[in-house]
Amino acid sequence: MKNYHLAVFPADGIGPEVIAASQQVLRQLEQLHGGLRFETREFGWGSAHYEHTGAMMPADGLQQLERGGFDGLLMGPVGSPAIPDHVTLWGLLLPIRQGFDQYVNLRPMRQLDGVASPLRNAGQHPIDMVCVRENSEGEYAGVGGRVHRSQPQEVAVQSIVFTRTGTERVMRFAFDYARQQSRRLVTNVTKSNSMQHNMVFWDDVFRAVAADYPTQATDQQLVDSMTARMVSQPETVDVFVASNLFGDILTDLGAALTGSLGLAPSANLNPERRYPSLFQAIHGSAFGLVGQNVANPIASIWSVQMMLEFLGETELAARLMQAIESVLREQRVRTRDLGGSHSTTDMTAAVCQALAAGS
Amino acid sequence: MKNYHLAVFPADGIGPEVIAASQQVLRQLEQLHGGLRFETREFGWGSAHYEHTGAMMPADGLQQLERGGFDGLLMGPVGSPAIPDHVTLWGLLLPIRQGFDQYVNLRPMRQLDGVASPLRNAGQHPIDMVCVRENSEGEYAGVGGRVHRSQPQEVAVQSIVFTRTGTERVMRFAFDYARQQSRRLVTNVTKSNSMQHNMVFWDDVFRAVAADYPTQATDQQLVDSMTARMVSQPETVDVFVASNLFGDILTDLGAALTGSLGLAPSANLNPERRYPSLFQAIHGSAFGLVGQNVANPIASIWSVQMMLEFLGETELAARLMQAIESVLREQRVRTRDLGGSHSTTDMTAAVCQALAAGS
Ligand SMILES: CC(C)[C@H](C(=O)O)[C@@H](O)C(=O)O
Ligand SMILES: CC(C)[C@H](C(=O)O)[C@@H](O)C(=O)O
Repeated sequence: MKNYHLAVFPADGIGPEVIAASQQVLRQLEQLHGGLRFETREFGWGSAHYEHTGAMMPADGLQQLERGGFDGLLMGPVGSPAIPDHVTLWGLLLPIRQGFDQYVNLRPMRQLDGVASPLRNAGQHPIDMVCVRENSEGEYAGVGGRVHRSQPQEVAVQSIVFTRTGTERVMRFAFDYARQQSRRLVTNVTKSNSMQHNMVFWDDVFRAVAADYPTQATDQQLVDSMTARMVSQPETVDVFVASNLFGDILTDLGAALTGSLGLAPSANLNPERRYPSLFQAIHGSAFGLVGQNVANPIASIWSVQMMLEFLGETELAARLMQAIESVLREQRVRTRDLGGSHSTTDMTAAVCQALAAGS
Repeated sequence: MKNYHLAVFPADGIGPEVIAASQQVLRQLEQLHGGLRFETREFGWGSAHYEHTGAMMPADGLQQLERGGFDGLLMGPVGSPAIPDHVTLWGLLLPIRQGFDQYVNLRPMRQLDGVASPLRNAGQHPIDMVCVRENSEGEYAGVGGRVHRSQPQEVAVQSIVFTRTGTERVMRFAFDYARQQSRRLVTNVTKSNSMQHNMVFWDDVFRAVAADYPTQATDQQLVDSMTARMVSQPETVDVFVASNLFGDILTDLGAALTGSLGLAPSANLNPERRYPSLFQAIHGSAFGLVGQNVANPIASIWSVQMMLEFLGETELAARLMQAIESVLREQRVRTRDLGGSHSTTDMTAAVCQALAAGS
């Protein structure tokens, strides 16, 4: 019997609903594979915790998670209209990403059969992009402050901090990933015309790392025109590596182009496995949908799939991906974001059925 | 006789071709309106100048322009594959934007009749958005540096600097603009969940300024989900105000969504008119197209139209807009980016004809 220990955070908004869906899928996976157990421990951290205690998680939250010896963290979206966003995010998600050195945020954006892209021509070349996003520093370093608060002469500074270590390792990951997955192109997304310190540095590091992968095709794209390229010629985009903020922006765009933010998964990885990695839908907490059982659970379920990959459960991961794909392809069950009127639980049941049927 | 003095910079790549188109339109406007002259002085600044002199413009370039007493600056795109982008941009465009305190970058993104959007559903609600982009500080403040260059411990810092003055004035411009143009909504684009210093400050200022415009509807959107909103529900976006970098990214996206980067104009404004303002297509120098007479000149011509508006030549501006619209609507003449095979000069001639015909 193989046991995986997972920490589960329903978190905020529609989080509990999509996380419940993911847990149901875990149960189904156990049934499929007799020798496997996912032991989950639930953590009630998040905005509700904040309302009670004044903190998103306990002061020793990270230590608790480390002591727990978890193989993975499954998290719902974080953020609540009742609490300033920087309080919620710097109280839970960002400390985990940074404290557990989850320096890669891996984000596939793949248009699946049966899902319509908002792009007129996307059908001809289904979108298939992967973002390798730097996830531990850069624009999210948190460095800065304000002086002369509320005075006319007030100044606010936020410093983008890139380290060579941090930049190099995420690029190596991108190149290794491209090689393993036989992807044809690695695009470096940059903004080195206007950002002459951090981005020129980023490009220098990219060139140095690329030299170690002489057979890998690469190109460069400024972040602004990258959005236009993703819209006008998405078939030319394959793997791209981007800073924390650029990766954030471009993956929401990419997710929207593949048909719905409700589909797009992410893996926040510490590739060396010194710390647990975190798997999470990229969508927000969508308070407007809470309790209605209408959220699309696929993004969260697909994040479970990414966790299985990361755990080395390749076969099970492939089966889950097939199940997701077959449900979307058949279009019998479609949540509101996909133009249907099925519920979160309908969609989850469909995935579980497809898993059981092995289709 | 009314004389306008314009400085004209053909600049780089396809710049000379689209600037020639704009100058032809200026001549046509003079014919249309007997009492008006556009005196242009051409400046050969840019990448070619750099190749000869080692500088994008003379050391006293800004003073020369100030002494010239220009009513407006018309510029082609800046940037060359032969020179690092930060050298070209910090050598010409960015010093002008900042030195002439052109703190508003006004960028309409409007889908015109006859132009297909890459979005499947855009026809139903033609896209009509305007970005008011901060253009003098922020991510483009240029502040930062590198330490331990080329060493494993190297760190590169780029500091985003927001001032209350700089933030407030661009927001006031956005609200005033929305009022003058009777626009229904002003959206504040932000990223205050992860960027807790500059963006939380930005939001504070937005709230304060909005309080002075109590009848103006407003909302907030995180920059990442803004891209998804622009793709999935562009009809919900009206005027938006954004930082220098966010405005840069979102307007390339917006331009692509309206059908072509070859259409989108911009105005870099010093609203107080203490310094000349600069008008420029938002597309790049596209060295791959140079000398082929295939670039779409509309973005540059539309920028002339924005200049006319800013100069108070409202009627002439309206006529030029009508001419642009009728050429695109009729679709008899279409450049490559619009799916046709007409040339830059064909398109320019068509606009001039439409102007002459008053249609
Ligand atoms: C919630 C927010 C801080 C986060 C981010 O910006 O990284 C989210 O948008 C994401 O993409 O995971
Ligand atoms: C060329 C570059 C510096 C510029 C910018 O980023 O502002 C351009 O992309 C623009 O949008 O005008």
